[in-house]
Amino acid sequence: MKTGRLEAFSDGVLAVAITLLVLDLHLDVSAGHAAISTQLREEWPSFAAYAVSFFFIGVMWVNHNAVLALAVRVDRALLFYNLILLMFVATVPFTTSTFAGLMRDGGSDARWAVLLYAISMEGMAISFGLILHRIVRHGLLGQPVGEAEARSAIRRFGLGTLAYPIAALIGLLSPPAMLVAYLALAAYYMVEHTAILPSQVDADPA
Amino acid sequence: MKTGRLEAFSDGVLAVAITLLVLDLHLDVSAGHAAISTQLREEWPSFAAYAVSFFFIGVMWVNHNAVLALAVRVDRALLFYNLILLMFVATVPFTTSTFAGLMRDGGSDARWAVLLYAISMEGMAISFGLILHRIVRHGLLGQPVGEAEARSAIRRFGLGTLAYPIAALIGLLSPPAMLVAYLALAAYYMVEHTAILPSQVDADPA
Amino acid sequence: MKTGRLEAFSDGVLAVAITLLVLDLHLDVSAGHAAISTQLREEWPSFAAYAVSFFFIGVMWVNHNAVLALAVRVDRALLFYNLILLMFVATVPFTTSTFAGLMRDGGSDARWAVLLYAISMEGMAISFGLILHRIVRHGLLGQPVGEAEARSAIRRFGLGTLAYPIAALIGLLSPPAMLVAYLALAAYYMVEHTAILPSQVDADPA
Amino acid sequence: MKTGRLEAFSDGVLAVAITLLVLDLHLDVSAGHAAISTQLREEWPSFAAYAVSFFFIGVMWVNHNAVLALAVRVDRALLFYNLILLMFVATVPFTTSTFAGLMRDGGSDARWAVLLYAISMEGMAISFGLILHRIVRHGLLGQPVGEAEARSAIRRFGLGTLAYPIAALIGLLSPPAMLVAYLALAAYYMVEHTAILPSQVDADPA
Repeated sequence: MKTGRLEAFSDGVLAVAITLLVLDLHLDVSAGHAAISTQLREEWPSFAAYAVSFFFIGVMWVNHNAVLALAVRVDRALLFYNLILLMFVATVPFTTSTFAGLMRDGGSDARWAVLLYAISMEGMAISFGLILHRIVRHGLLGQPVGEAEARSAIRRFGLGTLAYPIAALIGLLSPPAMLVAYLALAAYYMVEHTAILPSQVDADPA
Repeated sequence: MKTGRLEAFSDGVLAVAITLLVLDLHLDVSAGHAAISTQLREEWPSFAAYAVSFFFIGVMWVNHNAVLALAVRVDRALLFYNLILLMFVATVPFTTSTFAGLMRDGGSDARWAVLLYAISMEGMAISFGLILHRIVRHGLLGQPVGEAEARSAIRRFGLGTLAYPIAALIGLLSPPAMLVAYLALAAYYMVEHTAILPSQVDADPA
Repeated sequence: MKTGRLEAFSDGVLAVAITLLVLDLHLDVSAGHAAISTQLREEWPSFAAYAVSFFFIGVMWVNHNAVLALAVRVDRALLFYNLILLMFVATVPFTTSTFAGLMRDGGSDARWAVLLYAISMEGMAISFGLILHRIVRHGLLGQPVGEAEARSAIRRFGLGTLAYPIAALIGLLSPPAMLVAYLALAAYYMVEHTAILPSQVDADPA
Repeated sequence: MKTGRLEAFSDGVLAVAITLLVLDLHLDVSAGHAAISTQLREEWPSFAAYAVSFFFIGVMWVNHNAVLALAVRVDRALLFYNLILLMFVATVPFTTSTFAGLMRDGGSDARWAVLLYAISMEGMAISFGLILHRIVRHGLLGQPVGEAEARSAIRRFGLGTLAYPIAALIGLLSPPAMLVAYLALAAYYMVEHTAILPSQVDADPA
């Protein structure tokens, strides 16, 4: 099977999920509502979480794009891993909304909200790692990739699988700090990894 | 007409429907809400139903993909059957939400919820069978498929049309068991059928 | 400009709008809800309106597809007409929900609901007519179409522009009859017009 | 990286955001609701804001299309600017709904609503300007563009970056006048700029 429709369907789910995040933003405009300036002050976690989750899914799209561009074929295992990835992506509007609503509650509720958000992120990281591994290790590549480069790419993305739980641990101490940590991780994967994968291919004209 | 835009439109509807399932997930975070751990325990049917329905639509997409890849042309009957398929796919967020909300109610309400969920699934199965039959039997194939293989493919997918009502009957006794049954059916169609269709084409270079 | 991205964007809006119709379907599953069988009996207008609007947008997609397939170029007027078409398509979940909620109210509220639904449909019909006219009359065609065929195609689609207000007039007397009328019109455009346009092109190899 | 998937993902987000605007339209049809004619009179800001925002995002899509069509390659900076653009696009259903709900409140709440709406628009204008600048100035073009034409295109789109805050200032005096101003700006970018970019390329066969 070709990669075209896999990309189209994945783009669709990513685009819908990233746009549904906006449903978490709302101000009360009904009769007798509190002053908007007050509401904006109180709702800042929604805006901050919107921006971080949007950027996070966006960077996931950038890397999904880069990794799938390496593949020329798709097998059933890859389709399955991709479905699992999309299943976690699609939960982000829910976990973002829950996190934003509870992050200032403190106590066990805030910790549950941190945990749910972290599960979304970790689920994406693990399934993305499986996709990358499948493409590089099971002959789905258009051009062979050097062993050193392959191991390096898998290791770098695998790092995220370890870094995200650390962000969650930070979240147990300070939920806003967790948002900053995820933002930093997304920025890292925006800058570093998209650059590496294509250049590996270039570097190995085999 | 070519298959390109049919695939793009179908990918769009499937991607939106699968992502809208997330709207069924929600926790009460308003002032005075119950503890999140309690809510998560009580809301587990929503999470289980989310995962099963997501996987089910995802596998439907995989097979839709595989079957449409066999076609080189589209006729009006195929467009019509595809619209009917999409109409049932788009109901899944509704029937999933209803099922998750009622599955522990017992009595006739839970039975109605099982029935609605089963109608979504059966509607998809029947319209998918019509699409497969139309492509294989009405000259829309890119390459001819051997008679034995064609009959076998149609029979295998037709099995689902029979298996889904059995899952519904199980649901009348135990709604959670129905979720397991649908998950098992989706897993079967993930593993078995996507493999069969392309290899039939390979096996018959005609 | 090529037609590719116009089709992709239009497919996207049509796919989202057609799938958002499901948000109009909902049953009360909160504590103390009425029996589901009772709710289903009372909510039948929502299900009927869902099916009719889904089918209507689906047939609009089929014909949009067929007409755009004739074009090889896109100009700014066509982009503008297409935006207007999509603006009306995107209102359908709103007008469908309003219509389903009010169709049994009788009195002036039901008439307003009929009017809003009819405006959605008429807006689509007029903007679709403008798109067809633009493509056929302003040199955007890939292959020339005979004068008689062009006039016939424009006239047939123009008929809808007249038939939809008649359906609305029927709706003022009986809202359910209006649903039947729109369903019949959609069925007519499913069967008749998609067939005509491609064969016109075939019939005129110029 | 090629531009194909960037366009597909952007089309997806734009299509979802533009269609989600419909969620801002709603009439109360529950038992004991006010007369629909009264509600329509009171809800006119929602309908006006829906039309203006729909048209605005639609024109943004037209120009995004035209600018991306000039590019043959995508770099990480462009991907980043595009994500920022989409992040602002996706906020439009929220800011439109807030604006429509508050525009007749007067006082500081209406001013906040104007400000939020203007931030959506200004965010789009600035990130679109960054995309255009990146493509024209950093070697992502398929065909070279003359220096005079490039400067002219960047200046014209840059004008929007200045014109939108002026529309916001108008909004502080009269929110409805702001809607008219944004509609006029969208109409200007519909007519003028899409025409200019392709002809610049044609005019410089280099």
